[in-house]
Amino acid sequence: MILCVCLNPSTDVTYAVTELTYGASHHVEVVGRRAGGKAINVARVLHQLGEPVLATGLVGGVEGSAVRADLAAAGIGTDLVEIQGESRRTVTVYDGRDATVLNEVGPVVCDSEWRAFLARYAGLLADATVVVISGSQPPGVPADGYARLTELAVAAGVTVVLDAAGPALRAALAARPDVVKPNGVELGELLGRTLGGPDDVLAACRTLVEDGAGAALASLGADGLVAVTPAGSFRVQVPSAVTGNPTGAGDALTAAVTRGLRRGDDWPTCLAHGVAVAAASVSVDLAGSTDEALAAALLPAIRVEEIG
Amino acid sequence: MILCVCLNPSTDVTYAVTELTYGASHHVEVVGRRAGGKAINVARVLHQLGEPVLATGLVGGVEGSAVRADLAAAGIGTDLVEIQGESRRTVTVYDGRDATVLNEVGPVVCDSEWRAFLARYAGLLADATVVVISGSQPPGVPADGYARLTELAVAAGVTVVLDAAGPALRAALAARPDVVKPNGVELGELLGRTLGGPDDVLAACRTLVEDGAGAALASLGADGLVAVTPAGSFRVQVPSAVTGNPTGAGDALTAAVTRGLRRGDDWPTCLAHGVAVAAASVSVDLAGSTDEALAAALLPAIRVEEIG
Repeated sequence: MILCVCLNPSTDVTYAVTELTYGASHHVEVVGRRAGGKAINVARVLHQLGEPVLATGLVGGVEGSAVRADLAAAGIGTDLVEIQGESRRTVTVYDGRDATVLNEVGPVVCDSEWRAFLARYAGLLADATVVVISGSQPPGVPADGYARLTELAVAAGVTVVLDAAGPALRAALAARPDVVKPNGVELGELLGRTLGGPDDVLAACRTLVEDGAGAALASLGADGLVAVTPAGSFRVQVPSAVTGNPTGAGDALTAAVTRGLRRGDDWPTCLAHGVAVAAASVSVDLAGSTDEALAAALLPAIRVEEIG
Repeated sequence: MILCVCLNPSTDVTYAVTELTYGASHHVEVVGRRAGGKAINVARVLHQLGEPVLATGLVGGVEGSAVRADLAAAGIGTDLVEIQGESRRTVTVYDGRDATVLNEVGPVVCDSEWRAFLARYAGLLADATVVVISGSQPPGVPADGYARLTELAVAAGVTVVLDAAGPALRAALAARPDVVKPNGVELGELLGRTLGGPDDVLAACRTLVEDGAGAALASLGADGLVAVTPAGSFRVQVPSAVTGNPTGAGDALTAAVTRGLRRGDDWPTCLAHGVAVAAASVSVDLAGSTDEALAAALLPAIRVEEIG
């Protein structure tokens, strides 16, 4: 199966208000409430695509119970470690014009909880072919937490797909994850500079591969992606923009690429499917869902161009 | 004991952000989380003042469980009716300059749940000397819900203190509550006009008494209050403004007046204590708490003036 690691799951709540006004008091309708976090979104899309998936991570308190209940209702298998802290919530406030997002930082994970998670994770790797590690590390998890998870997976012969940013990504590269997938902004931040056109993004991806990643994919929103892989370097573009909610499109990309790796697709096929599924996900309101029919319709027009 | 009726309790969460920006994504720290709702705040202040108090109302879901747990931790006795819906949450976002408040509407209460509550409430009245009914009616509770609660209490010989607004207050007046305590804005809305100075507020209070209330108190924030009571009409003023968080000051006023009624204080004493405890509560960050030492220090300077 595909193991999805979400160290900091959330309950994602969407509020509808008439008009969000700074300093005012608002009556709000709760128009959405479901378990989230990047790796949870990846697990949802993989489940939708028919892949065998198991979600693991750290949850606590009533929000943690809500995460468990929601994933059970969605039919997504979980093996979660219970912690003392209270799992976080994110609140997205829509007023018909724009979304204002409030992301709680999440619970502090203590040392014994982190060690308990490592033991659980090591056991779960025995049945995994690919592990997806995605999202932020909660407070208390050591800076090299993702590096440690990558090491354990590599030692167990499990393919690692890592979607992280900043110091957590930096520290993990030396552990040689098979794939890293920052977005363009995160990639620029990691290198301490603003990235220019595709050639510049390509050069940035190359440094990640030189530092240890097997492949580096930079997702560029509506501009598709740039990838450095063992089979060459590619630019992948979607011909026409899909309008809708782009939140979670990167997670849909990760899910489709992961499916391709698991079934042994070649890299151009993995990347084309990834961009098609990601573009189609924009048409679906909720992060963690795509439109499979739209993805299939978009696929023939996806351009995969070898570059560099 | 004093029975506090909160039909729509909440978990009140306070978020701290660096700067709240419309349309942006924010990292937030959860800096406060506790059970709230106006009658819960009243119960907290009564408990702080050493009064025997019991909180009742309707709660459901994980937020309802959080309300129960938080009140138990605060040592406040409860007898709550469990409902199918999920209790609401309020989110206050502070960025150091101002507070932006998001109030979930709350669960829909179905007819059988409302009837179950009425039966529970009728039983609890047997041990009550005063009942405080405060806050908004959740969706599904009939428009004359507070009227019905008032009728049952009056029939049981229990003193009724009602802090409500709009149609719920309007409908309850005919049931003859002993005390009603709208704030100035709510009183103006009820009468469909903007109120002017103290004489105008006094006239407005008189109409509530003519319509059935035993006494009508209009809280005016830093301007104190105006009251029409069986012992005469009064204006009560606090000599110097207390700076801080005024949220919940009206609930502190209700609590202190209720304590006075229960122990048989005369009306000027009830009102002076109410204004002192309310003013002192402004110095405390959290709604539902006051500063008893500050209230005692303020008390000698509170001016109670007979008017009208």
